[in-house]
Amino acid sequence: MDTKPQIYAVIMAGGVGARFWPRSREKNPKQLLEIAGEGTMIQNTIRRLGAFVEPKNVFVVTNKMQKDGIMQQLPQVPQANILVEPVGRNTAPCIGLAAMFVQRLDPKGIMVVLPADHLIQDELEFVRVLELGASVADASESLVTIGIQPNRPETGYGYIQVREDAEEDRPAFMKEGVFQVKTFAEKPNPQMAQQFLESGDFLWNSGMFMWRVDVILSEIQRSLPDLHERLKQLEPSLGTPMFEQSLDRAYGMVRSISIDYGVMEKAKSVYVIRGNFGWNDVGSWDEVCRLAPKNECGNFANGTIIAVNSKNTYVHAPGKLVATVGVDDLIIIQTDDALLVCKKDNSQDVKEVVDYLRRKKMNEFL
Amino acid sequence: MDTKPQIYAVIMAGGVGARFWPRSREKNPKQLLEIAGEGTMIQNTIRRLGAFVEPKNVFVVTNKMQKDGIMQQLPQVPQANILVEPVGRNTAPCIGLAAMFVQRLDPKGIMVVLPADHLIQDELEFVRVLELGASVADASESLVTIGIQPNRPETGYGYIQVREDAEEDRPAFMKEGVFQVKTFAEKPNPQMAQQFLESGDFLWNSGMFMWRVDVILSEIQRSLPDLHERLKQLEPSLGTPMFEQSLDRAYGMVRSISIDYGVMEKAKSVYVIRGNFGWNDVGSWDEVCRLAPKNECGNFANGTIIAVNSKNTYVHAPGKLVATVGVDDLIIIQTDDALLVCKKDNSQDVKEVVDYLRRKKMNEFL
Repeated sequence: MDTKPQIYAVIMAGGVGARFWPRSREKNPKQLLEIAGEGTMIQNTIRRLGAFVEPKNVFVVTNKMQKDGIMQQLPQVPQANILVEPVGRNTAPCIGLAAMFVQRLDPKGIMVVLPADHLIQDELEFVRVLELGASVADASESLVTIGIQPNRPETGYGYIQVREDAEEDRPAFMKEGVFQVKTFAEKPNPQMAQQFLESGDFLWNSGMFMWRVDVILSEIQRSLPDLHERLKQLEPSLGTPMFEQSLDRAYGMVRSISIDYGVMEKAKSVYVIRGNFGWNDVGSWDEVCRLAPKNECGNFANGTIIAVNSKNTYVHAPGKLVATVGVDDLIIIQTDDALLVCKKDNSQDVKEVVDYLRRKKMNEFL
Repeated sequence: MDTKPQIYAVIMAGGVGARFWPRSREKNPKQLLEIAGEGTMIQNTIRRLGAFVEPKNVFVVTNKMQKDGIMQQLPQVPQANILVEPVGRNTAPCIGLAAMFVQRLDPKGIMVVLPADHLIQDELEFVRVLELGASVADASESLVTIGIQPNRPETGYGYIQVREDAEEDRPAFMKEGVFQVKTFAEKPNPQMAQQFLESGDFLWNSGMFMWRVDVILSEIQRSLPDLHERLKQLEPSLGTPMFEQSLDRAYGMVRSISIDYGVMEKAKSVYVIRGNFGWNDVGSWDEVCRLAPKNECGNFANGTIIAVNSKNTYVHAPGKLVATVGVDDLIIIQTDDALLVCKKDNSQDVKEVVDYLRRKKMNEFL
């Protein structure tokens, strides 16, 4: 192919960001917050695509609660491109739905699928990797994922093992940093994570994907025929007043399954592009704290903070006076209606607070 | 004497309670707060006197900031009995001023001098000790103080060493639990505190005193002649519109000195009554926490608190949702405008926050 294919971005923005409570709320979750630096996470996700994807080619898949917030934050994205799932069914249905919309515009278009809530430091390198991935996806007619070069034995991510091919076997599109996927590995235990790191042929599964829309739809058809069937049934109502009702019906019958488990791991051929661009999925307050600029005592403060014998604290309390006395390794998040005080090592457990609020139906705090 | 002397209570309520920031504020300090159980500390200080002191015989010495709050909380005390010092000059001038007012009503009246911010568990026993002390003060024409039976080697209090007299030397008023004071000891180091505890003849200096007004005034005259002179100069203006101005002038020239250092330690004869009535001067949030009712995880909560893997926390945040995750031994105090997060062991250092606010002239938080 000589003409460059059109690129479409699909931003997955349905998460609730429970670990970022009390700032992250159902209507205003992690991806809609300025959680690290300037701009909200979803705004930065789209901004950093730059000229690689035109705003009219950006799709956002979200839910009813977040729709208004997303439209406000992304005025450059056409309203018709904000796709609202009636319920969350994990990533496979989300991606299938978006693929249907892309396909209608461009049956051979390239989809770049990105979570809305990741941080990327080296944006030029990131776009270079996307361009490389798009060319591989187009030329190979395969699924492509981005694997992050690991720098620690992380147990919180899935891993991708790459296949080292002999030089002579490599097709032309397999430039430096492009590999065939050998296996997908679940989140490892610490020993395995250490082995993965030392082996040198494992990358972190970033949850970022690229493929031609016809390729992913045929892979869905092969591996998740039920889902494909439901999507096909939706097609006639697309762009009609019936669509919302049809979508409700379809999602009522679609099972919840991830694209990794449902499609990627079963695909005939998957390529991975090795990325090394300062990636961070910002999974917890602890991680935000690690990324934040700190003073000589290791304290970060947003608000008026008086720290007495305190170190390694992260305090977010805009417009409020906070005094910390004799504390360390604490995260303190103050919003208008709630306060979180959390030991850094336990910041994954913030989710338990949200679970509790849900069980007790304390909806005003969700 | 056969007729019982009249009893007057002098409540010292000038403290700022800096260690109880952010609840304790200049206008609403520790003694005006419901800090442990029901009723404010000053209300309880007067309530527990019961029939021992009539409300019309209660004097409160305070400052301009607290006057309104005190009048509101103590409607039973005559307004004329709320004495306002222009500046704080420690306890000797405060007591001298009150003595002048008592003397005018009753030249041989008995003064019971009490801090406004102590807790007492066994109120019947407390009143019994006051009655005993008053009779000793009257019969001996000496200064009388209350010494608390120590139960730990506390380094935060001064101590009183008692003299064990031979039975035959004891005057009739020296009933069980009444001793002559041998020495006053400063706050000890831990080794000395341990020795004091083991010796059995040391009591904690509680800062509660009893004496006849003529006796204390003549002791002030002897040990602090300057102060006595200033008080004498005030007398003609007492009850006239000139009083406030005279008081300003007198206090401008009076030096700051405690009754312990300025009078008690120099007095010819001082008696101490041993008290064992569950006394607590509630010196810090840590102490409040120790006294508070706690759940099985050692947590106390005033407000809506979700505690995940948290223990031994004290949370005061009425009307606010607070979640604690993975924390222990923390004190969390939330007011409308400020938040304190403090490690229990460091609760004495809360004072440093107030010092900082004062240095930076952040007066709205004082």
